[in-house]
Amino acid sequence: MPEESVHHHISKQFEQELEHIRHRVLVMGGLVEEQVANAVKALLENDVNLADEVIDNDYRVNSMEVEIDEKCTEILARRQPAARDLRLVLAVIKTIADLERIGDEARRIARQSLDLSTRYPKTNQLSELEQLAIQVRAMLHNALDAFARINVDLALKVVEEDKTVDKEYESIIRQQITYMMEDPRSIPVSLDIMWSARSLERIGDRSCNICEYLIYLVKGKDVRHISLEQLEKEVRQ
Amino acid sequence: MPEESVHHHISKQFEQELEHIRHRVLVMGGLVEEQVANAVKALLENDVNLADEVIDNDYRVNSMEVEIDEKCTEILARRQPAARDLRLVLAVIKTIADLERIGDEARRIARQSLDLSTRYPKTNQLSELEQLAIQVRAMLHNALDAFARINVDLALKVVEEDKTVDKEYESIIRQQITYMMEDPRSIPVSLDIMWSARSLERIGDRSCNICEYLIYLVKGKDVRHISLEQLEKEVRQ
Repeated sequence: MPEESVHHHISKQFEQELEHIRHRVLVMGGLVEEQVANAVKALLENDVNLADEVIDNDYRVNSMEVEIDEKCTEILARRQPAARDLRLVLAVIKTIADLERIGDEARRIARQSLDLSTRYPKTNQLSELEQLAIQVRAMLHNALDAFARINVDLALKVVEEDKTVDKEYESIIRQQITYMMEDPRSIPVSLDIMWSARSLERIGDRSCNICEYLIYLVKGKDVRHISLEQLEKEVRQ
Repeated sequence: MPEESVHHHISKQFEQELEHIRHRVLVMGGLVEEQVANAVKALLENDVNLADEVIDNDYRVNSMEVEIDEKCTEILARRQPAARDLRLVLAVIKTIADLERIGDEARRIARQSLDLSTRYPKTNQLSELEQLAIQVRAMLHNALDAFARINVDLALKVVEEDKTVDKEYESIIRQQITYMMEDPRSIPVSLDIMWSARSLERIGDRSCNICEYLIYLVKGKDVRHISLEQLEKEVRQ
Protein backbone atom coordinates (compact mmCIF):
# COMPACT_ATOMS: atom_id res chain seq x y z
CA MET A 1 0.00 0.00 0.00
CA PRO A 2 1.29 3.52 -0.70
CA GLU A 3 2.13 5.45 2.46
CA GLU A 4 -0.80 7.86 2.06
CA SER A 5 -3.20 4.95 1.90
CA VAL A 6 -1.66 3.18 4.92
CA HIS A 7 -2.08 6.37 6.87
CA HIS A 8 -5.68 6.71 5.74
CA HIS A 9 -6.34 3.08 6.69
CA ILE A 10 -4.92 3.57 10.19
CA SER A 11 -6.82 6.79 10.81
CA LYS A 12 -10.03 5.13 9.66
CA GLN A 13 -9.46 2.24 12.07
CA PHE A 14 -8.76 4.73 14.82
CA GLU A 15 -11.99 6.56 14.07
CA GLN A 16 -13.84 3.28 14.28
CA GLU A 17 -12.27 2.56 17.66
CA LEU A 18 -13.34 5.94 18.98
CA GLU A 19 -16.82 5.38 17.58
CA HIS A 20 -16.88 1.98 19.25
CA ILE A 21 -16.15 3.36 22.74
CA ARG A 22 -18.69 6.14 22.25
CA HIS A 23 -21.23 3.47 21.32
CA ARG A 24 -20.35 1.32 24.35
CA VAL A 25 -20.81 4.32 26.65
CA LEU A 26 -24.33 4.71 25.30
CA VAL A 27 -25.06 1.00 25.78
CA MET A 28 -23.77 1.29 29.35
CA GLY A 29 -25.87 4.44 29.78
CA GLY A 30 -28.97 2.57 28.60
CA LEU A 31 -28.34 -0.19 31.12
CA VAL A 32 -27.84 2.32 33.94
CA GLU A 33 -31.05 4.15 32.96
CA GLU A 34 -32.88 0.84 33.13
CA GLN A 35 -31.41 0.08 36.55
CA VAL A 36 -32.55 3.46 37.88
CA ALA A 37 -36.02 3.06 36.34
CA ASN A 38 -36.42 -0.42 37.82
CA ALA A 39 -35.12 0.61 41.23
CA VAL A 40 -37.63 3.46 41.36
CA LYS A 41 -40.44 1.18 40.14
CA ALA A 42 -39.52 -1.43 42.77
CA LEU A 43 -39.67 1.28 45.43
CA LEU A 44 -42.95 2.85 44.35
CA GLU A 45 -44.76 -0.41 43.61
CA ASN A 46 -43.25 -2.43 46.43
CA ASP A 47 -41.93 -4.96 43.91
CA VAL A 48 -39.45 -7.15 45.79
CA ASN A 49 -38.55 -9.28 42.76
CA LEU A 50 -37.69 -6.26 40.69
CA ALA A 51 -35.54 -4.89 43.52
CA ASP A 52 -33.66 -8.19 43.64
CA GLU A 53 -33.18 -8.01 39.88
CA VAL A 54 -31.64 -4.53 40.14
CA ILE A 55 -29.26 -5.69 42.86
CA ASP A 56 -28.31 -8.79 40.84
CA ASN A 57 -27.71 -6.77 37.68
CA ASP A 58 -25.31 -4.28 39.24
CA TYR A 59 -22.33 -6.45 38.30
CA ARG A 60 -23.23 -5.91 34.61
CA VAL A 61 -22.79 -2.14 35.04
CA ASN A 62 -19.49 -2.71 36.83
CA SER A 63 -18.09 -5.02 34.18
CA MET A 64 -19.07 -2.60 31.41
CA GLU A 65 -17.11 0.11 33.20
CA VAL A 66 -14.03 -2.10 33.44
CA GLU A 67 -14.39 -3.14 29.77
CA ILE A 68 -14.69 0.43 28.44
CA ASP A 69 -11.97 1.68 30.77
CA GLU A 70 -9.57 -0.98 29.45
CA LYS A 71 -10.45 -0.10 25.87
CA CYS A 72 -9.70 3.57 26.61
CA THR A 73 -6.33 2.74 28.16
CA GLU A 74 -5.50 0.61 25.13
CA ILE A 75 -6.36 3.48 22.78
CA LEU A 76 -4.21 5.89 24.80
CA ALA A 77 -1.29 3.46 24.70
CA ARG A 78 -1.51 2.42 21.05
CA ARG A 79 -2.96 5.46 19.30
CA GLN A 80 -1.54 8.28 21.40
CA PRO A 81 -4.45 10.56 20.55
CA ALA A 82 -4.08 14.32 20.72
CA ALA A 83 -6.37 17.35 21.00
CA ARG A 84 -10.06 16.52 20.68
CA ASP A 85 -9.52 12.75 20.36
CA LEU A 86 -7.59 12.77 23.63
CA ARG A 87 -10.30 14.84 25.28
CA LEU A 88 -12.92 12.36 24.06
CA VAL A 89 -11.10 9.40 25.61
CA LEU A 90 -10.64 11.29 28.90
CA ALA A 91 -14.29 12.39 28.89
CA VAL A 92 -15.32 8.76 28.37
CA ILE A 93 -13.13 7.54 31.25
CA LYS A 94 -14.77 10.08 33.57
CA THR A 95 -18.29 9.54 32.24
CA ILE A 96 -18.23 5.79 32.82
CA ALA A 97 -16.96 6.32 36.37
CA ASP A 98 -20.05 8.47 37.05
CA LEU A 99 -22.34 6.01 35.28
CA GLU A 100 -20.99 3.21 37.42
CA ARG A 101 -21.74 5.23 40.55
CA ILE A 102 -25.22 6.05 39.31
CA GLY A 103 -25.58 2.26 39.07
CA ASP A 104 -24.50 2.04 42.72
CA GLU A 105 -27.19 4.55 43.68
CA ALA A 106 -29.78 2.47 41.80
CA ARG A 107 -28.66 -0.56 43.81
CA ARG A 108 -28.95 1.49 47.02
CA ILE A 109 -32.51 2.51 46.10
CA ALA A 110 -33.36 -1.14 45.40
CA ARG A 111 -31.97 -2.14 48.81
CA GLN A 112 -33.95 0.66 50.40
CA SER A 113 -37.10 -0.62 48.70
CA LEU A 114 -36.50 -4.09 50.17
CA ASP A 115 -36.20 -2.48 53.58
CA LEU A 116 -39.35 -0.45 52.98
CA SER A 117 -41.28 -3.55 51.89
CA THR A 118 -40.99 -5.00 55.42
CA ARG A 119 -42.66 -1.95 56.98
CA TYR A 120 -46.35 -1.15 57.29
CA PRO A 121 -48.14 -0.22 54.03
CA LYS A 122 -47.03 3.04 52.56
CA THR A 123 -49.11 6.15 52.28
CA ASN A 124 -49.01 8.99 49.80
CA GLN A 125 -45.57 9.78 51.27
CA LEU A 126 -44.22 8.20 48.11
CA SER A 127 -45.87 10.56 45.64
CA GLU A 128 -43.34 13.36 46.17
CA LEU A 129 -40.53 10.89 45.71
CA GLU A 130 -42.11 9.85 42.44
CA GLN A 131 -41.98 13.46 41.26
CA LEU A 132 -38.29 13.71 42.14
CA ALA A 133 -37.60 10.41 40.37
CA ILE A 134 -39.26 11.65 37.17
CA GLN A 135 -37.09 14.79 37.18
CA VAL A 136 -33.87 12.94 37.92
CA ARG A 137 -34.52 10.25 35.31
CA ALA A 138 -35.10 13.01 32.74
CA MET A 139 -31.77 14.60 33.73
CA LEU A 140 -29.92 11.31 33.27
CA HIS A 141 -31.66 10.64 29.97
CA ASN A 142 -30.87 14.11 28.65
CA ALA A 143 -27.25 13.87 29.79
CA LEU A 144 -26.85 10.67 27.77
CA ASP A 145 -28.70 12.21 24.86
CA ALA A 146 -26.40 15.25 24.98
CA PHE A 147 -23.43 12.87 24.96
CA ALA A 148 -24.85 10.88 22.02
CA ARG A 149 -25.53 13.97 19.92
CA ILE A 150 -22.56 15.99 21.24
CA ASN A 151 -25.06 18.69 22.10
CA VAL A 152 -23.67 21.27 24.54
CA ASP A 153 -26.92 23.23 24.72
CA LEU A 154 -28.76 20.18 25.97
CA ALA A 155 -25.88 19.52 28.39
CA LEU A 156 -26.25 23.04 29.76
CA LYS A 157 -30.00 22.53 30.16
CA VAL A 158 -29.35 19.48 32.35
CA VAL A 159 -26.95 21.44 34.57
CA GLU A 160 -29.56 24.20 34.90
CA GLU A 161 -32.22 21.67 35.97
CA ASP A 162 -30.15 20.58 38.94
CA LYS A 163 -31.33 23.54 41.03
CA THR A 164 -34.97 22.44 40.69
CA VAL A 165 -34.03 18.92 41.71
CA ASP A 166 -32.15 20.19 44.76
CA LYS A 167 -35.18 22.21 45.85
CA GLU A 168 -37.51 19.25 45.38
CA TYR A 169 -35.10 17.09 47.37
CA GLU A 170 -34.94 19.56 50.24
CA SER A 171 -38.72 19.82 50.32
CA ILE A 172 -38.99 16.02 50.63
CA ILE A 173 -36.51 15.99 53.51
CA ARG A 174 -38.41 18.76 55.33
CA GLN A 175 -41.72 16.99 54.84
CA GLN A 176 -40.41 13.69 56.12
CA ILE A 177 -39.00 15.41 59.22
CA THR A 178 -42.47 16.79 59.87
CA TYR A 179 -44.03 13.32 59.54
CA MET A 180 -41.44 11.87 61.88
CA MET A 181 -42.02 14.52 64.53
CA GLU A 182 -45.79 14.07 64.33
CA ASP A 183 -45.70 10.31 64.52
CA PRO A 184 -42.50 8.58 65.64
CA ARG A 185 -43.85 5.27 64.34
CA SER A 186 -43.27 6.62 60.86
CA ILE A 187 -39.55 7.13 61.51
CA PRO A 188 -38.29 3.95 59.77
CA VAL A 189 -40.43 4.57 56.67
CA SER A 190 -39.45 8.23 56.54
CA LEU A 191 -35.77 7.35 56.80
CA ASP A 192 -36.11 4.90 53.90
CA ILE A 193 -37.70 7.65 51.86
CA MET A 194 -35.04 10.17 52.85
CA TRP A 195 -32.17 7.85 51.91
CA SER A 196 -33.85 7.10 48.58
CA ALA A 197 -34.37 10.81 47.92
CA ARG A 198 -30.69 11.37 48.69
CA SER A 199 -29.71 8.70 46.16
CA LEU A 200 -31.93 10.31 43.52
CA GLU A 201 -30.43 13.73 44.24
CA ARG A 202 -26.96 12.25 43.79
CA ILE A 203 -27.98 10.73 40.45
CA GLY A 204 -28.92 14.27 39.40
CA ASP A 205 -25.48 15.54 40.49
CA ARG A 206 -23.73 12.82 38.54
CA SER A 207 -25.80 13.52 35.44
CA CYS A 208 -24.49 17.09 35.70
CA ASN A 209 -20.93 15.78 35.93
CA ILE A 210 -21.44 13.88 32.67
CA CYS A 211 -22.66 17.07 31.01
CA GLU A 212 -19.63 18.97 32.27
CA TYR A 213 -17.28 16.39 30.75
CA LEU A 214 -19.12 16.80 27.44
CA ILE A 215 -18.75 20.58 27.56
CA TYR A 216 -15.04 20.07 28.30
CA LEU A 217 -14.81 17.73 25.31
CA VAL A 218 -16.39 20.24 22.95
CA LYS A 219 -15.03 23.50 24.36
CA GLY A 220 -11.63 22.20 25.44
CA LYS A 221 -12.05 23.85 28.82
CA ASP A 222 -12.61 22.40 32.24
CA VAL A 223 -15.96 23.80 33.37
CA ARG A 224 -16.27 22.08 36.71
CA HIS A 225 -16.46 24.18 39.86
CA ILE A 226 -17.54 27.34 38.04
CA SER A 227 -20.81 29.17 38.58
CA LEU A 228 -23.85 28.47 36.42
CA GLU A 229 -23.59 32.00 34.99
CA GLN A 230 -19.96 31.45 33.95
CA LEU A 231 -20.89 28.07 32.50
CA GLU A 232 -23.68 29.57 30.41
CA LYS A 233 -21.21 32.15 29.11
CA GLU A 234 -18.65 29.48 28.20
CA VAL A 235 -21.20 27.42 26.29
CA ARG A 236 -22.62 30.38 24.42
CA GLN A 237 -19.21 31.65 23.37
CA MET B 1 23.95 17.50 21.90
CA PRO B 2 24.46 13.93 20.64
CA GLU B 3 21.20 12.05 20.05
CA GLU B 4 21.69 9.70 23.00
CA SER B 5 22.09 12.64 25.31
CA VAL B 6 19.02 14.46 23.92
CA HIS B 7 17.00 11.33 24.53
CA HIS B 8 18.37 11.05 28.05
CA HIS B 9 17.56 14.70 28.66
CA ILE B 10 13.95 14.30 27.49
CA SER B 11 13.35 11.18 29.54
CA LYS B 12 14.78 12.88 32.60
CA GLN B 13 12.44 15.83 32.07
CA PHE B 14 9.55 13.41 31.65
CA GLU B 15 10.46 11.66 34.89
CA GLN B 16 10.50 15.03 36.64
CA GLU B 17 7.04 15.81 35.27
CA LEU B 18 5.67 12.51 36.56
CA GLU B 19 7.34 13.13 39.90
CA HIS B 20 5.79 16.60 39.94
CA ILE B 21 2.22 15.34 39.51
CA ARG B 22 2.79 12.63 42.12
CA HIS B 23 3.99 15.34 44.47
CA ARG B 24 0.99 17.58 43.71
CA VAL B 25 -1.40 14.69 44.44
CA LEU B 26 0.18 14.37 47.86
CA VAL B 27 -0.11 18.12 48.49
CA MET B 28 -3.77 17.93 47.46
CA GLY B 29 -4.19 14.86 49.68
CA GLY B 30 -2.72 16.80 52.61
CA LEU B 31 -5.16 19.62 52.07
CA VAL B 32 -8.10 17.20 51.87
CA GLU B 33 -6.97 15.45 55.06
CA GLU B 34 -6.87 18.84 56.79
CA GLN B 35 -10.37 19.67 55.51
CA VAL B 36 -11.74 16.38 56.87
CA ALA B 37 -9.96 16.84 60.20
CA ASN B 38 -11.27 20.40 60.59
CA ALA B 39 -14.81 19.46 59.56
CA VAL B 40 -14.86 16.70 62.17
CA LYS B 41 -13.37 19.03 64.79
CA ALA B 42 -15.97 21.71 63.97
CA LEU B 43 -18.71 19.11 64.41
CA LEU B 44 -17.46 17.61 67.65
CA GLU B 45 -16.47 20.91 69.29
CA ASN B 46 -19.31 23.00 67.90
CA ASP B 47 -16.80 25.37 66.31
CA VAL B 48 -18.77 27.55 63.89
CA ASN B 49 -15.73 29.52 62.71
CA LEU B 50 -13.82 26.38 61.82
CA ALA B 51 -16.85 25.06 59.92
CA ASP B 52 -16.97 28.30 57.91
CA GLU B 53 -13.27 27.95 57.20
CA VAL B 54 -13.76 24.43 55.81
CA ILE B 55 -16.59 25.63 53.57
CA ASP B 56 -14.53 28.60 52.37
CA ASN B 57 -11.49 26.44 51.64
CA ASP B 58 -13.30 23.92 49.45
CA TYR B 59 -12.47 25.97 46.35
CA ARG B 60 -8.78 25.29 47.01
CA VAL B 61 -9.38 21.55 46.73
CA ASN B 62 -11.37 22.08 43.53
CA SER B 63 -8.73 24.21 41.87
CA MET B 64 -6.01 21.74 42.75
CA GLU B 65 -8.01 19.02 41.03
CA VAL B 66 -8.38 21.14 37.89
CA GLU B 67 -4.67 22.05 37.96
CA ILE B 68 -3.44 18.45 38.31
CA ASP B 69 -6.00 17.19 35.79
CA GLU B 70 -4.75 19.71 33.22
CA LYS B 71 -1.14 18.73 33.89
CA CYS B 72 -2.08 15.05 33.32
CA THR B 73 -3.84 15.84 30.03
CA GLU B 74 -0.78 17.81 28.93
CA ILE B 75 1.52 14.88 29.74
CA LEU B 76 -0.73 12.49 27.81
CA ALA B 77 -0.75 14.82 24.80
CA ARG B 78 2.96 15.71 24.75
CA ARG B 79 4.69 12.66 26.20
CA GLN B 80 2.39 9.90 25.03
CA PRO B 81 3.34 7.67 27.94
CA ALA B 82 3.00 3.90 27.74
CA ALA B 83 2.75 0.97 30.14
CA ARG B 84 3.37 1.90 33.78
CA ASP B 85 3.80 5.63 33.09
CA LEU B 86 0.40 5.68 31.38
CA ARG B 87 -1.14 3.77 34.26
CA LEU B 88 0.36 6.29 36.69
CA VAL B 89 -1.20 9.24 34.87
CA LEU B 90 -4.58 7.48 34.72
CA ALA B 91 -4.36 6.49 38.38
CA VAL B 92 -3.64 10.13 39.24
CA ILE B 93 -6.63 11.39 37.21
CA LYS B 94 -8.92 9.01 39.10
CA THR B 95 -7.33 9.61 42.49
CA ILE B 96 -7.75 13.39 42.33
CA ALA B 97 -11.42 12.95 41.35
CA ASP B 98 -11.98 10.94 44.54
CA LEU B 99 -9.95 13.40 46.61
CA GLU B 100 -12.08 16.23 45.29
CA ARG B 101 -15.22 14.37 46.34
CA ILE B 102 -13.78 13.61 49.77
CA GLY B 103 -13.37 17.40 49.95
CA ASP B 104 -17.08 17.72 49.12
CA GLU B 105 -17.95 15.34 51.96
CA ALA B 106 -15.81 17.44 54.34
CA ARG B 107 -17.78 20.50 53.25
CA ARG B 108 -21.04 18.61 53.85
CA ILE B 109 -19.92 17.65 57.37
CA ALA B 110 -19.01 21.31 58.01
CA ARG B 111 -22.48 22.41 56.84
CA GLN B 112 -24.04 19.73 59.03
CA SER B 113 -22.07 21.04 61.98
CA LEU B 114 -23.45 24.56 61.36
CA ASP B 115 -26.94 23.06 61.35
CA LEU B 116 -26.20 21.13 64.52
CA SER B 117 -24.85 24.24 66.25
CA THR B 118 -28.32 25.82 66.16
CA ARG B 119 -29.90 22.90 68.06
CA TYR B 120 -29.96 22.25 71.79
CA PRO B 121 -26.64 21.29 73.40
CA LYS B 122 -25.33 17.93 72.32
CA THR B 123 -25.01 14.91 74.50
CA ASN B 124 -22.68 11.95 74.31
CA GLN B 125 -24.42 11.10 71.03
CA LEU B 126 -21.32 12.47 69.38
CA SER B 127 -18.84 10.07 70.94
CA GLU B 128 -19.65 7.21 68.57
CA LEU B 129 -19.30 9.57 65.63
CA GLU B 130 -15.88 10.52 66.96
CA GLN B 131 -14.83 6.88 66.88
CA LEU B 132 -15.98 6.52 63.26
CA ALA B 133 -14.15 9.72 62.32
CA ILE B 134 -10.89 8.42 63.81
CA GLN B 135 -11.16 5.21 61.77
CA VAL B 136 -12.05 6.98 58.53
CA ARG B 137 -9.30 9.58 58.90
CA ALA B 138 -6.81 6.75 59.42
CA MET B 139 -8.08 5.08 56.20
CA LEU B 140 -7.63 8.29 54.22
CA HIS B 141 -4.20 8.89 55.71
CA ASN B 142 -3.05 5.34 54.97
CA ALA B 143 -4.45 5.51 51.42
CA LEU B 144 -2.34 8.61 50.75
CA ASP B 145 0.63 7.02 52.47
CA ALA B 146 0.23 3.91 50.30
CA PHE B 147 0.15 6.18 47.24
CA ALA B 148 3.24 8.10 48.39
CA ARG B 149 5.26 4.97 49.05
CA ILE B 150 3.65 2.90 46.26
CA ASN B 151 2.90 0.31 48.90
CA VAL B 152 0.26 -2.22 47.79
CA ASP B 153 0.26 -4.06 51.10
CA LEU B 154 -0.75 -0.89 52.90
CA ALA B 155 -3.34 -0.24 50.17
CA LEU B 156 -4.82 -3.68 50.77
CA LYS B 157 -4.92 -3.04 54.51
CA VAL B 158 -7.05 0.07 53.89
CA VAL B 159 -9.50 -1.88 51.74
CA GLU B 160 -9.76 -4.53 54.45
CA GLU B 161 -10.54 -1.87 57.08
CA ASP B 162 -13.61 -0.74 55.18
CA LYS B 163 -15.71 -3.57 56.62
CA THR B 164 -15.07 -2.37 60.17
CA VAL B 165 -16.04 1.17 59.18
CA ASP B 166 -19.26 -0.06 57.55
CA LYS B 167 -20.20 -1.94 60.74
CA GLU B 168 -19.46 1.09 62.91
CA TYR B 169 -21.54 3.25 60.57
CA GLU B 170 -24.52 0.87 60.71
CA SER B 171 -24.33 0.74 64.48
CA ILE B 172 -24.48 4.57 64.63
CA ILE B 173 -27.54 4.62 62.35
CA ARG B 174 -29.32 2.00 64.47
CA GLN B 175 -28.52 3.86 67.67
CA GLN B 176 -29.79 7.17 66.30
CA ILE B 177 -33.04 5.52 65.19
CA THR B 178 -33.49 4.28 68.74
CA TYR B 179 -32.93 7.79 70.14
CA MET B 180 -35.40 9.23 67.65
CA MET B 181 -38.10 6.71 68.51
CA GLU B 182 -37.62 7.28 72.25
CA ASP B 183 -37.69 11.05 72.02
CA PRO B 184 -38.98 12.72 68.83
CA ARG B 185 -37.45 16.03 69.95
CA SER B 186 -34.06 14.50 69.23
CA ILE B 187 -34.96 13.89 65.56
CA PRO B 188 -33.20 16.95 64.07
CA VAL B 189 -30.00 16.30 66.02
CA SER B 190 -30.07 12.60 65.19
CA LEU B 191 -30.52 13.36 61.50
CA ASP B 192 -27.53 15.70 61.55
CA ILE B 193 -25.48 12.93 63.11
CA MET B 194 -26.76 10.37 60.61
CA TRP B 195 -25.91 12.54 57.60
CA SER B 196 -22.46 13.22 59.03
CA ALA B 197 -21.90 9.52 59.64
CA ARG B 198 -22.94 8.85 56.04
CA SER B 199 -20.39 11.38 54.80
CA LEU B 200 -17.68 9.75 56.89
CA GLU B 201 -18.61 6.32 55.57
CA ARG B 202 -18.34 7.65 52.02
CA ILE B 203 -14.90 9.08 52.75
CA GLY B 204 -13.91 5.54 53.75
CA ASP B 205 -15.29 4.21 50.44
CA ARG B 206 -13.36 6.77 48.46
CA SER B 207 -10.15 6.03 50.35
CA CYS B 208 -10.64 2.42 49.19
CA ASN B 209 -11.05 3.62 45.62
CA ILE B 210 -7.71 5.41 45.83
CA CYS B 211 -6.09 2.19 47.05
CA GLU B 212 -7.63 0.24 44.17
CA TYR B 213 -6.17 2.68 41.64
CA LEU B 214 -2.77 2.21 43.27
CA ILE B 215 -3.05 -1.58 43.05
CA TYR B 216 -4.03 -1.15 39.38
CA LEU B 217 -0.98 1.04 38.87
CA VAL B 218 1.40 -1.50 40.36
CA LYS B 219 -0.21 -4.73 39.23
CA GLY B 220 -1.48 -3.49 35.86
CA LYS B 221 -4.85 -5.02 36.59
CA ASP B 222 -8.18 -3.39 37.32
CA VAL B 223 -9.12 -4.64 40.77
CA ARG B 224 -12.36 -2.77 41.26
CA HIS B 225 -15.55 -4.75 41.75
CA ILE B 226 -13.81 -7.93 42.82
CA SER B 227 -14.20 -9.62 46.18
CA LEU B 228 -11.81 -8.89 49.01
CA GLU B 229 -10.54 -12.49 48.80
CA GLN B 230 -9.74 -12.12 45.10
CA LEU B 231 -8.09 -8.77 45.80
CA GLU B 232 -5.88 -10.26 48.50
CA LYS B 233 -4.83 -12.97 46.05
CA GLU B 234 -4.00 -10.42 43.33
CA VAL B 235 -1.86 -8.35 45.68
CA ARG B 236 -0.01 -11.31 47.10
CA GLN B 237 0.80 -12.75 43.69
